[in-house]
Amino acid sequence: MTDLRALIDQRGLVQIMATHSPLSARLAEEAGFDGLWASGFELSALLGLPDVSLITMSQHLEMLGQIQARCKLPIVADIDTGFGNAVNVVFAIQEYERAGATAIVIEDKTFPKVTSLAADGRQELLRIEEFQGKIEAACATRSAPGFLVIARTEALIAGLGQEEAHRRARAYVEAGADMVLVHSKQSTPDEIEAFIDAWDGAAPLVLVPTAYPEMTLARIRATGKVGMVIWGNHAIRPAVTAMQQAFARIIADGGIHEVDKDIVPVSEIFRLQDMDAVKKTEKRFLR
Amino acid sequence: MTDLRALIDQRGLVQIMATHSPLSARLAEEAGFDGLWASGFELSALLGLPDVSLITMSQHLEMLGQIQARCKLPIVADIDTGFGNAVNVVFAIQEYERAGATAIVIEDKTFPKVTSLAADGRQELLRIEEFQGKIEAACATRSAPGFLVIARTEALIAGLGQEEAHRRARAYVEAGADMVLVHSKQSTPDEIEAFIDAWDGAAPLVLVPTAYPEMTLARIRATGKVGMVIWGNHAIRPAVTAMQQAFARIIADGGIHEVDKDIVPVSEIFRLQDMDAVKKTEKRFLR
Amino acid sequence: MTDLRALIDQRGLVQIMATHSPLSARLAEEAGFDGLWASGFELSALLGLPDVSLITMSQHLEMLGQIQARCKLPIVADIDTGFGNAVNVVFAIQEYERAGATAIVIEDKTFPKVTSLAADGRQELLRIEEFQGKIEAACATRSAPGFLVIARTEALIAGLGQEEAHRRARAYVEAGADMVLVHSKQSTPDEIEAFIDAWDGAAPLVLVPTAYPEMTLARIRATGKVGMVIWGNHAIRPAVTAMQQAFARIIADGGIHEVDKDIVPVSEIFRLQDMDAVKKTEKRFLR
Amino acid sequence: MTDLRALIDQRGLVQIMATHSPLSARLAEEAGFDGLWASGFELSALLGLPDVSLITMSQHLEMLGQIQARCKLPIVADIDTGFGNAVNVVFAIQEYERAGATAIVIEDKTFPKVTSLAADGRQELLRIEEFQGKIEAACATRSAPGFLVIARTEALIAGLGQEEAHRRARAYVEAGADMVLVHSKQSTPDEIEAFIDAWDGAAPLVLVPTAYPEMTLARIRATGKVGMVIWGNHAIRPAVTAMQQAFARIIADGGIHEVDKDIVPVSEIFRLQDMDAVKKTEKRFLR
Repeated sequence: MTDLRALIDQRGLVQIMATHSPLSARLAEEAGFDGLWASGFELSALLGLPDVSLITMSQHLEMLGQIQARCKLPIVADIDTGFGNAVNVVFAIQEYERAGATAIVIEDKTFPKVTSLAADGRQELLRIEEFQGKIEAACATRSAPGFLVIARTEALIAGLGQEEAHRRARAYVEAGADMVLVHSKQSTPDEIEAFIDAWDGAAPLVLVPTAYPEMTLARIRATGKVGMVIWGNHAIRPAVTAMQQAFARIIADGGIHEVDKDIVPVSEIFRLQDMDAVKKTEKRFLR
Repeated sequence: MTDLRALIDQRGLVQIMATHSPLSARLAEEAGFDGLWASGFELSALLGLPDVSLITMSQHLEMLGQIQARCKLPIVADIDTGFGNAVNVVFAIQEYERAGATAIVIEDKTFPKVTSLAADGRQELLRIEEFQGKIEAACATRSAPGFLVIARTEALIAGLGQEEAHRRARAYVEAGADMVLVHSKQSTPDEIEAFIDAWDGAAPLVLVPTAYPEMTLARIRATGKVGMVIWGNHAIRPAVTAMQQAFARIIADGGIHEVDKDIVPVSEIFRLQDMDAVKKTEKRFLR
Repeated sequence: MTDLRALIDQRGLVQIMATHSPLSARLAEEAGFDGLWASGFELSALLGLPDVSLITMSQHLEMLGQIQARCKLPIVADIDTGFGNAVNVVFAIQEYERAGATAIVIEDKTFPKVTSLAADGRQELLRIEEFQGKIEAACATRSAPGFLVIARTEALIAGLGQEEAHRRARAYVEAGADMVLVHSKQSTPDEIEAFIDAWDGAAPLVLVPTAYPEMTLARIRATGKVGMVIWGNHAIRPAVTAMQQAFARIIADGGIHEVDKDIVPVSEIFRLQDMDAVKKTEKRFLR
Repeated sequence: MTDLRALIDQRGLVQIMATHSPLSARLAEEAGFDGLWASGFELSALLGLPDVSLITMSQHLEMLGQIQARCKLPIVADIDTGFGNAVNVVFAIQEYERAGATAIVIEDKTFPKVTSLAADGRQELLRIEEFQGKIEAACATRSAPGFLVIARTEALIAGLGQEEAHRRARAYVEAGADMVLVHSKQSTPDEIEAFIDAWDGAAPLVLVPTAYPEMTLARIRATGKVGMVIWGNHAIRPAVTAMQQAFARIIADGGIHEVDKDIVPVSEIFRLQDMDAVKKTEKRFLR
């Protein structure tokens, strides 16, 4: 298991790409990202389901395990609210460690959750003490040395204001969280930058700038307080865009003769599948 | 279960798009394809594995079942060689019907298979009688009225020539196959068109023109002998292309601010996930 | 799908045996039970986990689907609290129907649940209106004609008394529940019989007499108000008993020479696995 | 991962009990066995399927992973013929190590296999060179230091005689096998003892005395050449026996009032599920 904590210490800021499959994970690795975000949103989307606690921990673990087996990057697991109370969190940490996660992000919403970016999603937060119990449970359960427990607060999204967001962030660090992910759905970085400015730096922050894309890496780095940026859905969105376009063209063109010029050849898929390794194995062991 | 046989009778030729997930299936449905190809190649690729009988029937069934539950299109299941001998085929047909497949394609290679398009893949075919036993087992086991058993011959790919390909195709129809999929890896349609020309039409043919993309829908329809065309890997290839490009741009741009202009917004993913249905359910039943 | 409702109409009272596997399901079928209880408790036990919402819907559905595929008895699915709120219930009903359940039992506890029989388990109940929303969601979602929605109240176990238990039971029937399961953890049938006596009969009742075994079939039938009795953990408990004894004997005896006299031979397992069908298939289709 | 090799060195002979679930694994651990046999036969039986290569590697890995997570005993995985050729073996070893196996047993039959104990099962063996390739592939792939590759020969069962059995056993050890499992279906130990007598001891042997139960531990130990005995189906057979008896009694008695006296109480299941740990977690972390 790659030590993500050491990587952050060394680089100051790591870039984590969302993934929904071993394939997208390998592409992220080849592109040069530092780690993977085993995203509940992307996996829900892949499975054609809304991101409201419908996919199960089994499905998420299965995909995460497959990713871990085919790709060397460290994996940050999105475990939503932890699948229930602190008892469920204890079990979840055991299972995610077993599947190969390097870190988990757990959020302070009540179960079942509604995706943070839904326009009118109701957002209720757990009492601080209750969520601290979950963080403590996660920290007490992990056994891998570099395993990171990242607490995510939805205080800004729930409209509770900067003060409550800070109060929660500090409380979560006190409970043992290694990092704090603070989420905003405003379309500019103002709210999140205000939070960062006032942050005392007790722990490095994690950002997911889906809603405010002009929060560039340079701008994030300049704050000096962010250790991790997660590009939260940038594997599934390009994939959807491309499939929509290719499908429409095939229907319009009456065949694949035009589309084929603009997509990777089958041989590129073979490369990504490691067909070469199969050929070597066949040569060495088939008799 | 949609009756694919009736659809072919009605339209003459149906267009089937490869899928590896409920998401790509929904996109294919929206684009106007007639059905889905639950492709072993695409699922292997998604899971980062070479297409050499490594993914299991469980994994394929699980994905197929998820697709069936989220999408109304009929599903043609790629069952490779049937996971073993005729005993395995009997079991496979029961399981694929249960998961919601409308048709299966079974091929006459020996197990474990090597993907047909690999440059130097060794290809051994089953004895005709043995493969007929598998087709008969499939036909005797299916219980859904419109369920299609499609026999796929790799005779041309194995270099056995047109005569053997025809001999096998006829023998498979005699054994009960509803359609015959004939595969070629030549980069032009010549070989496949020669096969079609000489085909007596005992059963409609199925084509997968991956290697010879200029075999357009119009050209296929003109033969009058083909009932189904499968675009065999045109969901995963655009997806890979787009993820590679988006990932490279994010690294180069130092953020998502540029890429975001060229990919579907998060709201489009919400739409595909049916977030609206969730909101309606919440309004109606949450108290 | 067997129509369990018709069976109850016809027999008055049906006997449902707990199951944790296709094997135990087949044994229940051979023994003459009318249906199966796809028990969360037994499956949790099989997987070595406490019954506190740790096993996932995926794991339960997978086992239920396997059981349905190997056994003809109707299956009553234990879905605990429905995996979240009414949105989760809608999804769960779709998934359980797809896997082959004939009925579901949903209970009025909050999520995550603690098993009802734990000595000091805290038991909080949902507000009646909220649980009615879940029942209505279940009823509105089911598509199979005979599919039963059974509401389970934990009011007696939560110590809320007979009046509240009746108030809840009536409210659940008003919301559409086909039957009401009323649970008690007292070691005699007194409490449950008091409930039955005062029940107005708006819907047939369901009992799970784990805690009060002297509530025999005859005694239950005599009430005239119970349509279903579930023997809730009588597959896993004999199995554990027998494995403990056999394992201890093998260690003590220094081999299997003694134990083998008291357990079914391998040939009996072959019979239960349908090895005969395999031999017939081989004879018919292998060439 | 427990080092099974070290355990064998230390004890001379280890006793391995068949398992089909975390529950039966825990019972085996409590009874004092040295390790577990993740049996394809028992898992097939649990799932109501004949043991003829129908359950998938996914299903076996899933169960093995669950067992490994709930029980400290080392696990010997029954991987049948390795799911195909040497390419499949390479993949299988990676997956079984990832799931937590300590050893695998791979057999020299052709795929798909028929269970060895079926009266008239046809048994074809791989060419020696081909099977050596599989063993070498397994040995070259394993990464855990104590991971054992055990080669199983069906030569005696296939009726090829002692000489061929020895030739194969020696060839497998030459190819790298750590131990050799030799199987017999004769109802007395004569055949297996003749094999052992003539064995040169190049590697320790493994026995599965299902068919000849009078081969006691003492008698096995006396040979001085056997390092492991596997009781191959002694979890599922007592379980079936007990469920049959309990089910019959419940039907006959008209209730559970009699049976309950002879089976473990619910509290014993709670103990095996670790309900106490849940209560401690609740006390410590729930707020």
